[in-house]
Amino acid sequence: MSDACQDFRVERRELERFMLAALARAGADAASAEAVSRALVTASRMGTDSHGLRLLPHYVRALQGGRVRGAPRMRFERRLPATGYLDAGDGFGHLAGYTAMDHAATMADEVGVGAVAVGHSSHFGAAGCYALAAAQRGLIGLAVCNSDPFVLLHRGSRPFHGTNPIAFAAPVAGGSPYLLDMATSSIPWNRVQQYGAIGRELPDQVAADAEGEVTRTPAEVAALLPLGGSDFGFKGAGLGGMVEVLSSTLSGMLHGFRLLPMGGPDMTTPRGVGHFFLALRPDAFATGNPFPECLRQYLDDLRAQPGRDGARVMAPGDREWTCQARRDAEGIPLDSANQVAYAELAESLGVRALQPLD
Amino acid sequence: MSDACQDFRVERRELERFMLAALARAGADAASAEAVSRALVTASRMGTDSHGLRLLPHYVRALQGGRVRGAPRMRFERRLPATGYLDAGDGFGHLAGYTAMDHAATMADEVGVGAVAVGHSSHFGAAGCYALAAAQRGLIGLAVCNSDPFVLLHRGSRPFHGTNPIAFAAPVAGGSPYLLDMATSSIPWNRVQQYGAIGRELPDQVAADAEGEVTRTPAEVAALLPLGGSDFGFKGAGLGGMVEVLSSTLSGMLHGFRLLPMGGPDMTTPRGVGHFFLALRPDAFATGNPFPECLRQYLDDLRAQPGRDGARVMAPGDREWTCQARRDAEGIPLDSANQVAYAELAESLGVRALQPLD
Repeated sequence: MSDACQDFRVERRELERFMLAALARAGADAASAEAVSRALVTASRMGTDSHGLRLLPHYVRALQGGRVRGAPRMRFERRLPATGYLDAGDGFGHLAGYTAMDHAATMADEVGVGAVAVGHSSHFGAAGCYALAAAQRGLIGLAVCNSDPFVLLHRGSRPFHGTNPIAFAAPVAGGSPYLLDMATSSIPWNRVQQYGAIGRELPDQVAADAEGEVTRTPAEVAALLPLGGSDFGFKGAGLGGMVEVLSSTLSGMLHGFRLLPMGGPDMTTPRGVGHFFLALRPDAFATGNPFPECLRQYLDDLRAQPGRDGARVMAPGDREWTCQARRDAEGIPLDSANQVAYAELAESLGVRALQPLD
Repeated sequence: MSDACQDFRVERRELERFMLAALARAGADAASAEAVSRALVTASRMGTDSHGLRLLPHYVRALQGGRVRGAPRMRFERRLPATGYLDAGDGFGHLAGYTAMDHAATMADEVGVGAVAVGHSSHFGAAGCYALAAAQRGLIGLAVCNSDPFVLLHRGSRPFHGTNPIAFAAPVAGGSPYLLDMATSSIPWNRVQQYGAIGRELPDQVAADAEGEVTRTPAEVAALLPLGGSDFGFKGAGLGGMVEVLSSTLSGMLHGFRLLPMGGPDMTTPRGVGHFFLALRPDAFATGNPFPECLRQYLDDLRAQPGRDGARVMAPGDREWTCQARRDAEGIPLDSANQVAYAELAESLGVRALQPLD
């Protein structure tokens, strides 16, 4: 999202202060509030606005409604030296995510790989947060999650998979981690709403109407197409399926197709979302292979490639780290809708209003 | 590929007989010949003709030229309980692939997960073969591989990644495995050649000319676009990058960008291809979770979804298993080019000619 014309900006510590206080007032324990805040601020700093601060009001509603437990009893069982299962106790997906990846990383440190399936969880924000947590420990990280259905199968006419993201991160010598965080649809659902609000046509091959026919008119959209569109959507749908199998089949949870909708109206019933996390220790494969240095060389090669029509070629994560540096310096912007929502949260929860930067 | 109008068909055992004999005459040891034959016949039975029997003449040339060693000294080192490295000794990628996945599966049986990086390897055919080998042992399997560059980066104008496939397979109660095997470009390179040969336009957003501009004219094509095309190719390129990092960065091999071309003309220098294999034990996560049964239920749900315009919705692998059943019953077809190539192999290697079914 462009930061232009958004003159309400907050410093990240101030945003954290507000989130921690709001979540505590709504019933979250310290660990839950810290995990949610960490994930939302991480996403907002990187410019992943669809999964950043705008979600706080939603999470407060989920807490207040009882869908999400603010003081969950999360239970981790290490099943074998490289695997485990985390029962997230219907708590926040962010706490489940950081906890599960932490266990995966500990196992990877010990035996080279750690894999954790998570059940009885909830929305965890941006998948990239958890892959990144592994990379920040020097590991390769993979994080995936299912959701309620928004996306058609290839040649299907009814939503079946969620936008089922794949996040992959790895450590780079002397730089920020490699970070891929992508939905297996071409666009996220809220892009349809954004385009509708400004009367703009969607790109071709990204969305469909109620009969499954491609449409570019936001008001007609009933579902997203999988990445690849009408011709090659079997690939996006297949990747969404891989995510589904790892997230829900492996954790024994309901498939996304059967999940209650994230948006409600039921905000009382736990949804039983599943996730999957994998951590790999990069020095546990080829001997004498300085992985972070080799990855840096690969990225140097990649960024030196010529672009079409003079465009600059970027690596996964480059956009995010550039945005993070800018927002750390200039503040994180809130659009007018978020300003209103945060003022309402301050009022209803009795939290000191968010203070903008001068 | 449609099997229509291809009246030269062979029984799979006859095809194996020919491949084993041809590879042995060209210098392959028994293990190498069996692995290559197993992978090619698996792909041809499933209808993955781009990676099936048509590759045999290429592999014979690679053996005779010295690029691939027919009697490689492959060395596996288990580095940690869940990880290992296979030095493939410049042998066939198929032997490396089956060997590495076998080690990964053994580790998964013991500690829940096994991950193996492979270096000093060569082209391994269809990635799905190795994911499938894990699923046939009751495990979830992932196999990826880099290649020499054919595919643009997002907004790039020069090929950088190979078609870098992702294969994922898992066991299904009472049925054939779940099998996703996809390139991270929309189409394979030989599709461009096929369309050119019959004077057909390519689909939109799958290929580009030498300046990186999208073209649908096969004769103008200099590169493939990553899955997602001009607008969303950052996703396909990001997935291709994930494959690259796991295949070459992790194994300490050259990145695909720097690999010698598969097609030659140099058929003497080993290429140093890298692969990565992962096996997960599905009963080592949630307790009491009958994964193959849950996966069957998911696939039942998936196949029951309504299709657009009356189309039937299929799961990953459905097309392949249908084709396999047909070809097991009716034989594997050879088009005229392959008939000529196989006759030439029989002549030059002194192998009894391939006998068609009546």
